[in-house]
Amino acid sequence: MTKKKIRIVQFGVGPIGASVVRLMRQKSAIEITGAIDSDPAKAGRDLGEVVGAADAPWGIRVSAEAAPVLAGQVDVITHCTSSYLKDVMSQLLACLEAGCCVVSTCEELAYPFRKHPELSARLDAAAKEEGVALVGVGVNPGFVLDKLVLTLSAVAQRIDSVRAVRIVDASKRRLPLQKKIGAGMTPQEFRERVAAGVIKHHGLPESVAMVADALGFAVDQISETIEPVIADDLVKTEFLEVEAGQVAGVHQIARGMIAGAEKIFMELKMYVGAKDPADTVTLTGEPNITLTIPGGTHGDIATAAVAVNAIPEILAAPAGLRTSRDLPLSYFAPNATP
Amino acid sequence: MTKKKIRIVQFGVGPIGASVVRLMRQKSAIEITGAIDSDPAKAGRDLGEVVGAADAPWGIRVSAEAAPVLAGQVDVITHCTSSYLKDVMSQLLACLEAGCCVVSTCEELAYPFRKHPELSARLDAAAKEEGVALVGVGVNPGFVLDKLVLTLSAVAQRIDSVRAVRIVDASKRRLPLQKKIGAGMTPQEFRERVAAGVIKHHGLPESVAMVADALGFAVDQISETIEPVIADDLVKTEFLEVEAGQVAGVHQIARGMIAGAEKIFMELKMYVGAKDPADTVTLTGEPNITLTIPGGTHGDIATAAVAVNAIPEILAAPAGLRTSRDLPLSYFAPNATP
Repeated sequence: MTKKKIRIVQFGVGPIGASVVRLMRQKSAIEITGAIDSDPAKAGRDLGEVVGAADAPWGIRVSAEAAPVLAGQVDVITHCTSSYLKDVMSQLLACLEAGCCVVSTCEELAYPFRKHPELSARLDAAAKEEGVALVGVGVNPGFVLDKLVLTLSAVAQRIDSVRAVRIVDASKRRLPLQKKIGAGMTPQEFRERVAAGVIKHHGLPESVAMVADALGFAVDQISETIEPVIADDLVKTEFLEVEAGQVAGVHQIARGMIAGAEKIFMELKMYVGAKDPADTVTLTGEPNITLTIPGGTHGDIATAAVAVNAIPEILAAPAGLRTSRDLPLSYFAPNATP
Repeated sequence: MTKKKIRIVQFGVGPIGASVVRLMRQKSAIEITGAIDSDPAKAGRDLGEVVGAADAPWGIRVSAEAAPVLAGQVDVITHCTSSYLKDVMSQLLACLEAGCCVVSTCEELAYPFRKHPELSARLDAAAKEEGVALVGVGVNPGFVLDKLVLTLSAVAQRIDSVRAVRIVDASKRRLPLQKKIGAGMTPQEFRERVAAGVIKHHGLPESVAMVADALGFAVDQISETIEPVIADDLVKTEFLEVEAGQVAGVHQIARGMIAGAEKIFMELKMYVGAKDPADTVTLTGEPNITLTIPGGTHGDIATAAVAVNAIPEILAAPAGLRTSRDLPLSYFAPNATP
């Protein structure tokens, strides 16, 4: 093979970024050329060591600053720093202005057109200016409650309404995730954290918006609720215990309404001790169709997977701001050629 | 709206073509401008009457000849005439040379590169010459055993093997389909019809090939078997009876092998009285994932659906021979603008 590898820089080396990096090392078409993380515990260290690779050191240093890394020859940035689009705008614009495609796990980038129309337009314009493409990907938003719905919609003659439900057993997930969903809190603490904006899984309204636009539902209101799931019995995980009456996790519902009528219902229950974890999509129309992933799509594994798998697709995509709605989404074979 | 509608000609007005036509009439972005069918029972008649539309006549005459219809202003041909690529080459080339995009339900066109590399190259070249795109779509091949597999593969970090099983209860399907699968025959008759090439659902090797190529499996052999499903008990459908010991339908298996090891297993059981109809995809790897459509994707409804839903996508696709692997595949909203 004389073809050059895809040169990639990892932007953000937290748990998801590290997982993305480890997976990218398994793809022969990829060469990781750099990494960016401002965390003093990581900056200056070898990337392989930071991500806990058995074959470290790799000779790739994590840089605290983006500019020097982006000045090199880079094809794609894999970006995993924050859920909020406002917080990452300057990072994304710097990547685009350096002429790089971007695959980001920023939840609000998965379908930003409703919540952030101006930021969306700026990103789209900047990408087109440079002839590159960017996309926000993930499991939720980005796959279970939207891409999977749209793929299933391809075999429907008529769709009247959509229901997508994701139930995640957080017992086997990382401690930070168990804490993030409020496991072990009192209901009072939980509600305070929700009010403070600390407890919330991001992305349900983005999924509702993507599905509404793709299915031609002129949704005029997207509502969202967050409630605690209260444990009925004691739940023990590797990391913590939740007593009966305490919070086991979050229960979020987002609805897409047209003139007060519900067209789209999306539900996320993520809690320790969840009984029947599964992802389920139901389309009502002609015909009625239901699709289930028993056990559910594994959040952490799948987020890294979908980010890495999207790399060849974003390189092939037309310039501009793309979403998982536009891309075929498939597997990036380890032995694929660049 | 000042935008012009998508002008479409239906090529082939059999049961599937008629279903495609009826569905296209529900899309405000589509204008059906003509139809082609050489059957003397249809040619010369009004298309609305031929497809049994309540609001017939439509003032669209079915033409026995393709050339005069293709000479008009046409954007897309929806093509539903035969399962065999060889049989439809001249039809497809005529459509492309008229500058039309094509969405076809020809099973062998779904992924023709292995079985018909030369025909594939000719179609690709002809399409690129005219700056248009064509695609073969359907439920199987085209969706259940391939597109759905690839979509699910987007959340996998590593895939070792694939298993996709489609079990269809033919009891509620059309009589021609029940006959096509051999329902009511003796096992001896069934085997004779298989040997004569009359009984066979087309498309399993195409699905295996698409999945193999997308997942980077260097499959060196695709095998296929066709066996009868024998009825254990009497099965009655609206159209026929199958006694115990008679054939209830077909059982086909296709395998993709690498050096004798099975990497891809695809199974189709289509018979009257099937107990648990369902489509099930299983990926083994990191992680293991299973997806199920209980009841299964409805063959006839979904074939027409996916053909019509692919229309905007083939118009937006790069010129050349495309497959459902390349397209996002989603719903074409009835109120979508052209």
